[in-house]
Amino acid sequence: MKVYLDNAATTPLDPLVFEVMKPLMTDFFGNPSSIHGHGREVRSYVERARSKVASLLKTSPSEIFFTSGGTEADNTAIFGCVETLGVDHIITSKIEHHAVLHTVELLAKLKAIKVSFVALDKNGCIDLDNLETLLKLPANKTLVTLMHGNNEIGNLIDLQQIGKMAHSYGALFHTDTVQTMGHLPHDLSNLPVDFLVGSAHKFNGPKGIGFLYVNYRNKIDPFIHGGAQERNMRGGTENVYGIVGLAKALEIAYTEMDQQTQYIKGIKKYMINKLKNKIADVQFNGKCAEIENSLYTVLNVCLPPTPHNEMLLFNLDIAGISASGGGACSSGSNIGSHVLAVLDRDSNRPAIRFSFCKYNTIEEVDYTVAKLHELIVLN
Amino acid sequence: MKVYLDNAATTPLDPLVFEVMKPLMTDFFGNPSSIHGHGREVRSYVERARSKVASLLKTSPSEIFFTSGGTEADNTAIFGCVETLGVDHIITSKIEHHAVLHTVELLAKLKAIKVSFVALDKNGCIDLDNLETLLKLPANKTLVTLMHGNNEIGNLIDLQQIGKMAHSYGALFHTDTVQTMGHLPHDLSNLPVDFLVGSAHKFNGPKGIGFLYVNYRNKIDPFIHGGAQERNMRGGTENVYGIVGLAKALEIAYTEMDQQTQYIKGIKKYMINKLKNKIADVQFNGKCAEIENSLYTVLNVCLPPTPHNEMLLFNLDIAGISASGGGACSSGSNIGSHVLAVLDRDSNRPAIRFSFCKYNTIEEVDYTVAKLHELIVLN
Repeated sequence: MKVYLDNAATTPLDPLVFEVMKPLMTDFFGNPSSIHGHGREVRSYVERARSKVASLLKTSPSEIFFTSGGTEADNTAIFGCVETLGVDHIITSKIEHHAVLHTVELLAKLKAIKVSFVALDKNGCIDLDNLETLLKLPANKTLVTLMHGNNEIGNLIDLQQIGKMAHSYGALFHTDTVQTMGHLPHDLSNLPVDFLVGSAHKFNGPKGIGFLYVNYRNKIDPFIHGGAQERNMRGGTENVYGIVGLAKALEIAYTEMDQQTQYIKGIKKYMINKLKNKIADVQFNGKCAEIENSLYTVLNVCLPPTPHNEMLLFNLDIAGISASGGGACSSGSNIGSHVLAVLDRDSNRPAIRFSFCKYNTIEEVDYTVAKLHELIVLN
Repeated sequence: MKVYLDNAATTPLDPLVFEVMKPLMTDFFGNPSSIHGHGREVRSYVERARSKVASLLKTSPSEIFFTSGGTEADNTAIFGCVETLGVDHIITSKIEHHAVLHTVELLAKLKAIKVSFVALDKNGCIDLDNLETLLKLPANKTLVTLMHGNNEIGNLIDLQQIGKMAHSYGALFHTDTVQTMGHLPHDLSNLPVDFLVGSAHKFNGPKGIGFLYVNYRNKIDPFIHGGAQERNMRGGTENVYGIVGLAKALEIAYTEMDQQTQYIKGIKKYMINKLKNKIADVQFNGKCAEIENSLYTVLNVCLPPTPHNEMLLFNLDIAGISASGGGACSSGSNIGSHVLAVLDRDSNRPAIRFSFCKYNTIEEVDYTVAKLHELIVLN
């Protein structure tokens, strides 16, 4: 049996998404910046996709900019805040994605940028009092950058509350919504957010394409410099198939959202209970075991120590089960998770992140828990 | 009749390229950074693609980095030279692509970078004596960035000669080879080039994917900051379909290169002669009419002035013929060509760029020249 429980790393492409991408790879090939017929027909696909994304998120197409993915979108927002909007103080947390953390670290090194890390409790939840204290620090302009749903432990932040607090101190608010986009609704007509990010391959869309929402109040310079694409905001010929696929994937995600949310929550709840029944002393990292209070796609399991901790993922892999230690984006480098490292947890206990999408089944969970039981309890 | 003669803007995807991309969109969906089975099988596609590109260009896979396209690759190289390699003097030309020009302009503004524009003759050819003079200017480190084949007027530079000259003065050499990649052979085992760039959609590959060659002697920092992808050189989940498509398109281009070169040169030569026969006083911008001395895919025609200059492209478009005024990347902005502007030419004469690929035919040229004749001579 082959089981894929690493959907926070990437999701399978929805076959309906592939269908809408296909004509752009076989029939309509023009450059959307060309003003002739071949270009205009492709441009109309791009602009319809932009309008679709904007309408799903209840915002204007003029606030949506396509990028090569979530990482580029995060880089664009944060560099833009510093280079164009005068930000000289960035408040972030130690459990952000590297697309944010490494960008902030670089800016701290290159520029006279002060970086403050907000205090976290033992589960990785943000200390709001501390956030408010940091917002009071003197600065020309402060940027708060905090991710909506943590990709490793599934913690969620309250965008309304944090956005309002940031704005009440005149700060900008950027949030990496890569893990929640297409999984939770985002109503940008009513969200105190300046920059927000999506990556298609996290919601059954194609890889290599994402977008940045820039609230109309903020005007930032491009990050990638070149032609006049994306209304002068991002040089480079558009990834047309990707853009069309992203919009379709987001449309499907919104259409199916209520149903898939219930379905996937059910799978997660089932796995939590099954694990508790089968493995004494199983724990869960961060807030992910609180079904209604966490990202329903992510379950980070904290297992009892075994003599073969480091072999667990390999043995699951041999059994055909794909899961993850840290985030996929850093797994290539064989460095432990920077997120788990800052939690108050027993580092002798192995952590495995299981993450779900609409294609997972109860049978896959049964198989996975049985295998874990075999590896941990029977071994 | 629909005629596409704007292949310097973008080319149709080769159906064989689509075939190799398809399984990565339907069956193999893992994140190449994941260490489990689903990830490893996709990683092997990415690394085979990298090896293929490297072997076609006679270099090592460790020197090839995939990007979202040529523009990002140019940005990465130029920013890297300044941020990491200590470049404080950039020599470039006024007819470079905006991916280079706008990046250089920005760096001149942000940093204490001196920018020198090499002198050009009336056809846009580089004055090598002037280049040598500029290379003698005092600097900590100099970067020469000159494009191999000009996208608007088809001028070629001699990479061997210019690279050797740059290196003899201790300068770095970056060349935007977007227009020549897949059309002319590049033997990196024997080319004095530090950075070189490719964009798949210019050689019948997919949009949204390109690569940067970085010679092993140079170690630059990433431009997009995030995960450890591309051996820590480029954060962001890889555009796997794009990467696989790029490698296949380049493989096809190299396999067919001799044959397609002859075929497309024949079409270009035929069009030049036909235009000369049908339109008295037709001229050609830059060096593009010198078949053996220019990019065989580009023909920039300088037509006699008409009372309806600005309507020519529109009238061709109405007749189903797609061609271009300036480069596609800036056509959206409705600003005249920055390349033609620096040539010594009569600006009352309309310029139209026709650019070819292997799918064009003699019949298309006949139809296009007949239409031009009708619009210019018979009108």
